[in-house]
Amino acid sequence: MALTEKTATKDSTNNLQVKGAQGEKGLMLKSTPEDVKGLSIGQYLIKRLCDYGLQDMFGIPGDYVLNLYGLFEKSDINVVGCTREDSAGFAADAYARVHGLGAVCVTYCVGGFSVSNSIAGAFAEKSPVVVITGSPGIKERVNDPLLHHKVRDFRTQAEVFEKICVATAEIIDPSTAFRDIDRVLAMAVRYKRPVYIEIPRDMVDVQPEMICEYEHNTLKSDEQAAIESAAEAAELLAKAKKPLIIAGVEVHRFGLQDELLELAEEASIPIAATLLSKSVVRETHPLYIGMYAGSMGEEHVTKYVEDSDCILLIGTFLTDLNMGIYTAKLDASKCIYVTSEQLRIQHHHYHNVLLEDFLKNLIQKKPQPARREIPNARKIGEKQFEPEANKPITINRVIQKINQHLNEKTAVIADTGDAVFAATELCIKARTEFVSAAYYTSMGFAVPATLGCCVANPDRRVITLVGDGAFQMTGMEISTIIAKGYAPIIIVLDNRGYGTERILHPGEWEYNEINPWKYHQLPSIMGGGNGYEVRTEDEFADAFEKALKDTKNLSLIQIHIGLKDGSKTLQRLADKLGKRVLFSLLGLRGIPLKRLFWVMFYS
Amino acid sequence: MALTEKTATKDSTNNLQVKGAQGEKGLMLKSTPEDVKGLSIGQYLIKRLCDYGLQDMFGIPGDYVLNLYGLFEKSDINVVGCTREDSAGFAADAYARVHGLGAVCVTYCVGGFSVSNSIAGAFAEKSPVVVITGSPGIKERVNDPLLHHKVRDFRTQAEVFEKICVATAEIIDPSTAFRDIDRVLAMAVRYKRPVYIEIPRDMVDVQPEMICEYEHNTLKSDEQAAIESAAEAAELLAKAKKPLIIAGVEVHRFGLQDELLELAEEASIPIAATLLSKSVVRETHPLYIGMYAGSMGEEHVTKYVEDSDCILLIGTFLTDLNMGIYTAKLDASKCIYVTSEQLRIQHHHYHNVLLEDFLKNLIQKKPQPARREIPNARKIGEKQFEPEANKPITINRVIQKINQHLNEKTAVIADTGDAVFAATELCIKARTEFVSAAYYTSMGFAVPATLGCCVANPDRRVITLVGDGAFQMTGMEISTIIAKGYAPIIIVLDNRGYGTERILHPGEWEYNEINPWKYHQLPSIMGGGNGYEVRTEDEFADAFEKALKDTKNLSLIQIHIGLKDGSKTLQRLADKLGKRVLFSLLGLRGIPLKRLFWVMFYS
Repeated sequence: MALTEKTATKDSTNNLQVKGAQGEKGLMLKSTPEDVKGLSIGQYLIKRLCDYGLQDMFGIPGDYVLNLYGLFEKSDINVVGCTREDSAGFAADAYARVHGLGAVCVTYCVGGFSVSNSIAGAFAEKSPVVVITGSPGIKERVNDPLLHHKVRDFRTQAEVFEKICVATAEIIDPSTAFRDIDRVLAMAVRYKRPVYIEIPRDMVDVQPEMICEYEHNTLKSDEQAAIESAAEAAELLAKAKKPLIIAGVEVHRFGLQDELLELAEEASIPIAATLLSKSVVRETHPLYIGMYAGSMGEEHVTKYVEDSDCILLIGTFLTDLNMGIYTAKLDASKCIYVTSEQLRIQHHHYHNVLLEDFLKNLIQKKPQPARREIPNARKIGEKQFEPEANKPITINRVIQKINQHLNEKTAVIADTGDAVFAATELCIKARTEFVSAAYYTSMGFAVPATLGCCVANPDRRVITLVGDGAFQMTGMEISTIIAKGYAPIIIVLDNRGYGTERILHPGEWEYNEINPWKYHQLPSIMGGGNGYEVRTEDEFADAFEKALKDTKNLSLIQIHIGLKDGSKTLQRLADKLGKRVLFSLLGLRGIPLKRLFWVMFYS
Repeated sequence: MALTEKTATKDSTNNLQVKGAQGEKGLMLKSTPEDVKGLSIGQYLIKRLCDYGLQDMFGIPGDYVLNLYGLFEKSDINVVGCTREDSAGFAADAYARVHGLGAVCVTYCVGGFSVSNSIAGAFAEKSPVVVITGSPGIKERVNDPLLHHKVRDFRTQAEVFEKICVATAEIIDPSTAFRDIDRVLAMAVRYKRPVYIEIPRDMVDVQPEMICEYEHNTLKSDEQAAIESAAEAAELLAKAKKPLIIAGVEVHRFGLQDELLELAEEASIPIAATLLSKSVVRETHPLYIGMYAGSMGEEHVTKYVEDSDCILLIGTFLTDLNMGIYTAKLDASKCIYVTSEQLRIQHHHYHNVLLEDFLKNLIQKKPQPARREIPNARKIGEKQFEPEANKPITINRVIQKINQHLNEKTAVIADTGDAVFAATELCIKARTEFVSAAYYTSMGFAVPATLGCCVANPDRRVITLVGDGAFQMTGMEISTIIAKGYAPIIIVLDNRGYGTERILHPGEWEYNEINPWKYHQLPSIMGGGNGYEVRTEDEFADAFEKALKDTKNLSLIQIHIGLKDGSKTLQRLADKLGKRVLFSLLGLRGIPLKRLFWVMFYS
């Protein structure tokens, strides 16, 4: 078995020379104190972003940030203007996931509040986005005047971002400006969460007379705890008859894919992923067994995972959706659970052990558990799709068709709702080429994220799945994609409403219905790209193949699907949840499961 | 002179039987404690909203708010689904301005953060919008699980809304639920600001066993201060040779238009408005002299106002834009400045005097200042527009044409940028029929606000002016307008970018340019309405007249205007600001005026 993955797959995060804690250290060497002498605060920020490998930034200009915007336009950083701030935020988030760090620049309050939802999502799903914003000048604030865009007081915006960022800085003092910028950027890279930098407009061009350097304290593990925990984990693994790794999203965020594969390949431990970490290893890898999602996932995967006697969960978020809305049955006494935030073996905890140190130590222990039979790699992609003429197309058939054409150059982006459930059935053939907001589940993520991914990696062919409800929120961002000349394939699953809900929520609700659009005509309004409207299998096959061939233009395929059509994954979830109502009604669990039916399918 | 306005003009806020403090009291009588017995928390909220006269609500359903949404759908309140949460927020804001109270219902976090910008705007401009949101059930929160949509912890969303609402309630205890709802709704009406009500989804159907009634403490003036201040103001007015009233936006918000006119008409005091309060009195009123906005306004108005020896500013926000970006020259020693928040006569202050009490007391004093010559009412509307064939249309000519057709049944809505500057030159013939976000200046307000105004008052014919940049943000909300069968006229001023900036900000900046759309084709994509594309005066005249005649369908007129075309108001501001750079450079003022050039013109 050719298990060696490390050299075979190009890691798309290689664009950025920052990986986890190593990155933090490496950085400081790029610009010497000499290099930054004489720079203004705005110039310093740009220099530092470049040090971190940032090449592109998203945003909307606005008066309080105009002079900074001017500096960006003159810099090496490519500024991508979007139609709306929230779209710019989603694009920056997706860019950060692919590239390692993203940035969005917006004006004060009207821009900041508009991007807040995207940044909240980046926080929830650990995506390092730098929010850059202007604000009224310090000198303008005397006597607290009613300057436009102000809400309650001058700090209102900063106070909001303190809630949804891992670090914030309001640059109000030149002498500490550089240090503040360094601190905040370091936090973004260390914690893989968004950060906030607000530069009042009269500070942008200020050259500090004195520079305070930031003391860059790299996080360190408690050495003894790191050794003891790795030894314990290795021992448990060594004894295991049916070991398994569940590779979570942090493996990607912290750039630990190679390390993970080293561990797994050395000992032939099978690997599962989660909804949020789908494609953290390429899904054609011989050790990859599929996506684990409790009852929501494929039955054989669920069984294989839950049958394990030692499960190493690495960087996995135990979210409701990752765990198949609480249908996952993972016995804690068989689990080794490690993330950047905690390390738990069975029922005891180790504090202050870094994820990367744990993994490194564990690899050194070379645990050799029993070799477990690994089911054949997922076959979905192999089923040939033969279109049937005039037969109404279904989501399942859409997935089959797409699966047939995925290759190592394709990336898939899925929006919230059945777009993401259906997309879980796709077999992603390259690492980190599946992007979705599978925890925060904000509708409207996918189309702006498509822009972000195209900018981050123009060589990838992006295929995007989005529902009609989500498309109405941010789909007009195809405007920017067209203007910039990218050629993704956007597939709008059109069931004239918030469709997942129709399957899972009993009753006829008018609020499920939305005004139908001729989505396929939008590209012509935007001045580029091609639109297709399809209803049958052959129409879809034809349109999809034309779209694949057209590598110069955006393609938008509007698929009319049945009002109650749903992917296999969604159906499975609906069925299993149906059975669980009984338990709920019988009061067998504290959590009101009836309510949980609604979870996610309507947001 | 037929100066009596009170009976002549129908007040569109009459829809709602709540006016200022009176409303607060009146309310409590509608539902007796007997009426609310046995209601669930969700039902009680709906009953209370109905008590306050709310007839319509805007929003997007989402899982954490679905059961509440179901209750709304079954109730007497009409639920208007929008394409996006921020649009729903803008619509609710505009609805609140016309109707007296508005409401928006969104799901947890992904909905809440998405509507936060609209609510921040409602806070800044004093529009009473009730934000209703669901959240994870109390029982689901045990052990702090990673439920989807959660950001940092379960209170993150509430903490954000505490910054941008005048009162908030998280309904976590049934015994105080009714009282909390009453308290928060009362604050919205009292302070004309948004409020926030979060009902965890397992609380919606709970029937409290015990009901704590809210003690409704109506604000009261300090009686002696109220008497003394009115007496002083009356004396100053009585002595005045050139008295003037500047009627601000709070006159509208607190429903004091009749009282204001009583004062003005009894003593023949001329009235000016501000950008934010435009149409607070109908602009054809014999006492109305025009909009005061420093150098930004018409010169004869500015002169007339600044020449006054006693200026009564009632409910006016001294914002940067209202004051023509600090070009206003109002001598405080000649001013009586009263709002809901402060009362200042010359340089001394009275505390705890309610706006309405001050006004009432002042009316009783019957001040009789010298009768000042009142310039003829604004004549702009009278200039006949004769289209010149094949002549490229300009913004000024667009305004002339529209002015010719405004009547008492027309409402005008203007977005940020030159749309609002140009619209200031329109003569609004009915009270409260001009709506814009002239202080918070969030781009993208106008089209969703059009929906809100249409829903609040379907009999009004709405004409909306919006720039192309703003239209790209939220213009797709025409979808809902079309689906609901309203027939506003949306005029897209298309200069292929953030146009105001081109006039005011020197240099060629790429970020000014946006991807041009064929906006006029959008109605056909949405399944209704008509689109027009015009370039010349005759084309515009023709399209506008057709649109006026078509009272059944939305009309969208895309006007291609010159890249550097600007309204007279914008030109005036540019010219005046140009002169002021000199002062700035000479350091004659503390405020860096050079920077102020950028204020507003780019956001």
